[in-house]
Amino acid sequence: MNKQLQCLLKTFADFDERELDVICRAFKYKKVNKNALLLNQGEICKEVYYVTKGCIRTFFITKQGSEKTRLINLEGSIGTAFSSFVNRTSSFEMIETIEDTELLAINYNDFYRLIDEINHWRDFYQKLLEMAYTFQNKKIEQLVTLTAKQRYDLVLKENPALVQRVSNKVLASYLDIREETLSRIKNK
Amino acid sequence: MNKQLQCLLKTFADFDERELDVICRAFKYKKVNKNALLLNQGEICKEVYYVTKGCIRTFFITKQGSEKTRLINLEGSIGTAFSSFVNRTSSFEMIETIEDTELLAINYNDFYRLIDEINHWRDFYQKLLEMAYTFQNKKIEQLVTLTAKQRYDLVLKENPALVQRVSNKVLASYLDIREETLSRIKNK
Repeated sequence: MNKQLQCLLKTFADFDERELDVICRAFKYKKVNKNALLLNQGEICKEVYYVTKGCIRTFFITKQGSEKTRLINLEGSIGTAFSSFVNRTSSFEMIETIEDTELLAINYNDFYRLIDEINHWRDFYQKLLEMAYTFQNKKIEQLVTLTAKQRYDLVLKENPALVQRVSNKVLASYLDIREETLSRIKNK
Repeated sequence: MNKQLQCLLKTFADFDERELDVICRAFKYKKVNKNALLLNQGEICKEVYYVTKGCIRTFFITKQGSEKTRLINLEGSIGTAFSSFVNRTSSFEMIETIEDTELLAINYNDFYRLIDEINHWRDFYQKLLEMAYTFQNKKIEQLVTLTAKQRYDLVLKENPALVQRVSNKVLASYLDIREETLSRIKNK
């Protein structure tokens, strides 16, 4: 399972075997049932997750009571409530499993200790931050420039597994469209 | 003028005098009239700006034709169209001066060369990315949880100079409210 994580890390920086070994020992295995909260609103996010099996989402609830999903992580990807994690502030976002899920979790102290100890982990973190920022900017751009149908077509093209695996409710909140609109688009 | 920049950099990392000297020599001075475009939509953003005098904003236009201002930089702050700069992709956002402005600009090659050469510059960049990400997340959070009036009160409290100096049109697009709504709130 660590092999998956090692392969991903190698796409970010030129880690050697010793470094990968130190890093992987900092990640702890967790098995979590479907629909469990990994982080509640108001808590400080203390972990970064690498999903090895299943699916998690990072979302928040507006004051009108509607859910907005910022990020969906299928197996093979890394996610967390970054603002809360980085700044050690209480989180506006929640994280929940949307399938039975297996994770590798690294906590705040280990994450930043590795930045001091391993230069390639620093490179990795820099690229992760750049990607997180870019992803978020891209999402804002899509929300204001693409129609509901165009947003659905884009996610279907770029991430078809996501469309197959998450519920219409979650997918609609990820695309920021109403569930009925999503059903109508899917039926066409 | 470089002194201002040096003071700011020192709040990010423990630079020594030699490092600050190398860094400041990489920044080029620019004087730009009001209402000039520093970056147009579709161009690749090639510079990061430190504003020494005046004001710039980073904004985009929705497909309905309305302007959304993501970031306003008064003197003493750093800004750019980060996604385009980092990924060397064509920019969705534009950057314009909204007052007669003086800038220190560092280009892509120098920016990343300094990351390889100066560890403290790497620390600075990591913190800048964390701040940029957090700022953007905070803004999304405020847009979905605060009323127009609450958003105006917040910017008035946290950044009163901004409210005094930018036009109602720009401020409204920054707060994502209509100009008439902003006028009504201001008049109360």
